[in-house]
Amino acid sequence: MAAKQKTLHDLFLHTLKDIYYAEKKIQRNLKKMEKGTESEELRQAFVTHREETEGQIERLEQVFEMLGKPARGVTCEAINGILEEGESIMEEFADSEAADAGILAAAQAVEHYEIVRYGTLRTWAQELGLNDAVPLLEQNLEEEKKTDQLLTQLAEARVNKKAA
Amino acid sequence: MAAKQKTLHDLFLHTLKDIYYAEKKIQRNLKKMEKGTESEELRQAFVTHREETEGQIERLEQVFEMLGKPARGVTCEAINGILEEGESIMEEFADSEAADAGILAAAQAVEHYEIVRYGTLRTWAQELGLNDAVPLLEQNLEEEKKTDQLLTQLAEARVNKKAA
Repeated sequence: MAAKQKTLHDLFLHTLKDIYYAEKKIQRNLKKMEKGTESEELRQAFVTHREETEGQIERLEQVFEMLGKPARGVTCEAINGILEEGESIMEEFADSEAADAGILAAAQAVEHYEIVRYGTLRTWAQELGLNDAVPLLEQNLEEEKKTDQLLTQLAEARVNKKAA
Repeated sequence: MAAKQKTLHDLFLHTLKDIYYAEKKIQRNLKKMEKGTESEELRQAFVTHREETEGQIERLEQVFEMLGKPARGVTCEAINGILEEGESIMEEFADSEAADAGILAAAQAVEHYEIVRYGTLRTWAQELGLNDAVPLLEQNLEEEKKTDQLLTQLAEARVNKKAA
């Protein structure tokens, strides 16, 4: 049997599985970040985002359902690398003055990965005419952007505190 | 000898080495992307960005010099994972209708990694009072953002073409 020609629909499904895997792994990672920080503000940001992540996973499951496919992840080498690097920084700088700066940077690297993937998935959903999937992916995208902005504010607050 | 307490300066230097390694690897990867696309517009975007990357690497070398440190990379697991995933997508979807969509997505994942790291490095340079490093990191950040915007435009042009 000849291999069927790959389509954008295949690529969309593959990337959906990729971010599904990533979100589940991020959810577990956020718990580690919560424990790693001594900043109450930062800890609260991670708790809130972990709760949001629950909802994001459910939205992804709705998209799988629209496609008539089981919700299943595929190993995402990108998020594995990003989280691995984040954990090694967290370990190396644990209990130092730079611990929270390291955690913040690790968390923002995760957010940017999610932002880029949801942006891409939304664009492809439009291209494929998957109109019901678009607002779900858009909602996840907006939540990730908001989280990234909050983390940027927390990082900049450190600079301003220093300058004061 | 007791381990010296780690500082934000150490974290800054570590992350500088991380992005230096990443940029050099990205430079080689952009050549593969140029070869992988049949879109002249996309190919041109990669060529331009590869040339920009040269300048970005030189700016990073200037920052190393300001710190009195040799310009040296450290293995960046994050970019390794992102590029590995991108290459596997490029292979899987090569010569299919989704080839360019896959390359675009891979390239945008790379851009977002660079955007988040330069944002972080710039903030830390401010916090550390490394005032001469700030504009260099800012310039790299702006170039990455511009490249990402261009790639988004190319991705959206595909949707509009489809809709037309």
